[in-house]
Amino acid sequence: MTNASIITIGDELLIGQVIDTNSAWMGQELNKAGLWVNRRIAVGDRWEDIWKALDEASAASGIILITGGLGPTADDITKPLLSDYFHSRLVVNEGALQNVKYIFETVLQRPMIERNLKQAEVPEVCTVIQNKRGTAPGMQFEREGKVFVSMPGVPHEMKGMMTEEVIPFLKKKFELPFIAHRTLLTAGVGESFLADHIQEFESALPATIKLAYLPNYGMVRLRLTGMGNDHAQISEETDARFTELKAQVKEWIVTDEDISLQEALGKILKSRRQTLATAESCTGGYIAHLITSIPGSSKYFPGGLIPYQNSVKENVLNVQQHTLETAGAVSEETVKEMITGALNLFDSDYAVAVSGIMGPDGGTEAKPVGTVWIAVGNRHTTETRKLWFRFDRQRNIELTSTNVLNLLRKFILSQP
Amino acid sequence: MTNASIITIGDELLIGQVIDTNSAWMGQELNKAGLWVNRRIAVGDRWEDIWKALDEASAASGIILITGGLGPTADDITKPLLSDYFHSRLVVNEGALQNVKYIFETVLQRPMIERNLKQAEVPEVCTVIQNKRGTAPGMQFEREGKVFVSMPGVPHEMKGMMTEEVIPFLKKKFELPFIAHRTLLTAGVGESFLADHIQEFESALPATIKLAYLPNYGMVRLRLTGMGNDHAQISEETDARFTELKAQVKEWIVTDEDISLQEALGKILKSRRQTLATAESCTGGYIAHLITSIPGSSKYFPGGLIPYQNSVKENVLNVQQHTLETAGAVSEETVKEMITGALNLFDSDYAVAVSGIMGPDGGTEAKPVGTVWIAVGNRHTTETRKLWFRFDRQRNIELTSTNVLNLLRKFILSQP
Repeated sequence: MTNASIITIGDELLIGQVIDTNSAWMGQELNKAGLWVNRRIAVGDRWEDIWKALDEASAASGIILITGGLGPTADDITKPLLSDYFHSRLVVNEGALQNVKYIFETVLQRPMIERNLKQAEVPEVCTVIQNKRGTAPGMQFEREGKVFVSMPGVPHEMKGMMTEEVIPFLKKKFELPFIAHRTLLTAGVGESFLADHIQEFESALPATIKLAYLPNYGMVRLRLTGMGNDHAQISEETDARFTELKAQVKEWIVTDEDISLQEALGKILKSRRQTLATAESCTGGYIAHLITSIPGSSKYFPGGLIPYQNSVKENVLNVQQHTLETAGAVSEETVKEMITGALNLFDSDYAVAVSGIMGPDGGTEAKPVGTVWIAVGNRHTTETRKLWFRFDRQRNIELTSTNVLNLLRKFILSQP
Repeated sequence: MTNASIITIGDELLIGQVIDTNSAWMGQELNKAGLWVNRRIAVGDRWEDIWKALDEASAASGIILITGGLGPTADDITKPLLSDYFHSRLVVNEGALQNVKYIFETVLQRPMIERNLKQAEVPEVCTVIQNKRGTAPGMQFEREGKVFVSMPGVPHEMKGMMTEEVIPFLKKKFELPFIAHRTLLTAGVGESFLADHIQEFESALPATIKLAYLPNYGMVRLRLTGMGNDHAQISEETDARFTELKAQVKEWIVTDEDISLQEALGKILKSRRQTLATAESCTGGYIAHLITSIPGSSKYFPGGLIPYQNSVKENVLNVQQHTLETAGAVSEETVKEMITGALNLFDSDYAVAVSGIMGPDGGTEAKPVGTVWIAVGNRHTTETRKLWFRFDRQRNIELTSTNVLNLLRKFILSQP
């Protein structure tokens, strides 16, 4: 199988001021195309570090994809470096120049400065990949059968180039094997327990099919990957094993597609033609954000309320003042009343409600930081759970949201 | 300056099923401690790839930090590999064993299986770093003056170990220089334009102080980094340059601290003892999520509404049916009425409102995908803007949210 290396360039990655989401996306797309990413390296804007990374990557892989360091500012040195690395010199590329002018005049409608024109310079030996979304052109080099592609670090510019130019080119250039992924998502079971439970299944897998455990947000995704040259055979074999795997973990399955919990929930609601509303205090809109991150969610999500202060719980959701005073805002009674309030306010079939203490402050002895009450329900019945997370604010919010969505999913499926 | 390498291990990183947020956090913490991360490499669960990464990292850096591959499942091979790499053998560590038992009996309250006990095995030559948050112990090795530390990939376990054990140890072991960072955030100006505007400032910087441009979410962060052994001198020099820089970019400054836009906004609201409510249609709760990601935001954020369907805009926010029918949901008139509705519903000093088409579907010729109307206002006046983004759904949501928060920030500062 042809291996690919990813090199990302920029001090901001090493110092951690920017999280590298590009590499993850590139890994997914390359893998789908039948390429295995065998290393991914990030280096700073230093000549010798980038040079060394290029040497190492080309020793390890047949394809070297580079992102970043193509900006117009002085700290960006990728272009002159690549020019030297391939014993070339910088020349103005007419197509790139037209593109820079077009971007400034038509898209940005901002005056262009001298510095921007430098963006149209490329090493003479490269094949230019025009950037339809920005000013920095992509550059492709070949040496001893290996392909090097340099792309901007701006995510949507890189993604456009990869999808429209780079992946199609690599598919033509290399004879890529067929890769079949089958993924399912489980919730409510630990990685170790799962591994023990399917130990025999795993050890009986043929060499062409691999199993991976991908824990995330308190859930575990299981992925089978089949690889080979016979498209039909690999698909069939992977499907057969996947059926077997699903049977073995069926009590914990959220979905047998490679989709998120919120997408799985959306599919259920759509197929039942039912709607959902949210009333979230401590998660502050994150549950609604997850739901509405799915295109088409307006079909089943009329809306949500974030009653962050108690006055809003009282005035908009009709939670009783008495309840807030006696049981408190973080209580089973309150989230139950929030469900009723949300069903009424949004006229929805289902509602979810959360109230808790996400930290780092605000805890008491009786209700320490991380205490959350969650509820899901409809007009007839409501289910509640008390949760306790001991992580940081962001992770507490994420785990609470996941628990709410999964509890609702099970609740809906239990309804006639 | 002592260099550090970060090695992250796991197929899930290369295939992109997990985004590597650990490395960014580690880079930040190491940098604060006076260590420069000069490379960061991700490799899969393959013996020879991990081995090679260890060889390369120890050639490049004095400190090698490793995360991942310590789980209890068969695909995790980091521990036996490290044992071989340091010519050792696996033995049970009594402290780690007690910890595994404690975690299962007291924290998880789940039955422990044989596989979990394997977690207590470590290479005989290592110094064990006990893991207070999980079952996989950390391991520290030294060879020829270089330090190797292996930690679990689970973020909060790794973070705990780094903060409590690894960073304090490295500070003692190495003589670390002093690093001073000064960061400011700008909005409404492009990277190229900024670079031209402060070109003279940048070229006049001494060798001990570096300037970095960090564009993100349509804003540009500028960071000055001073480095040296004289704490007081470096602080003073960096402060002086920072004052100069602030003066030069003052018309675009959002904040001169290393904080987010939402945190800067929160500080303004807190100092004015005023409150903010949100009414967000197309951003689906993301603006409220940003606001409530800041601890203590309940002081100035009574709550928000997500009127995702028009019926909620009408029934809860009192947007006129006539407005929705004639101007449409995505219009200046609608977001203006949403502001009034939100101010009334939440009894707040300010409100923000958004309505738009985030894609990938739902656009028309008059209102293509990416069209968004935003509004900010108080009881007396409202400001509106029409935006048009041409990115993917997630990025459209993020950029809209940033624009709303910055427009509100400027609006508040313009009020008496």
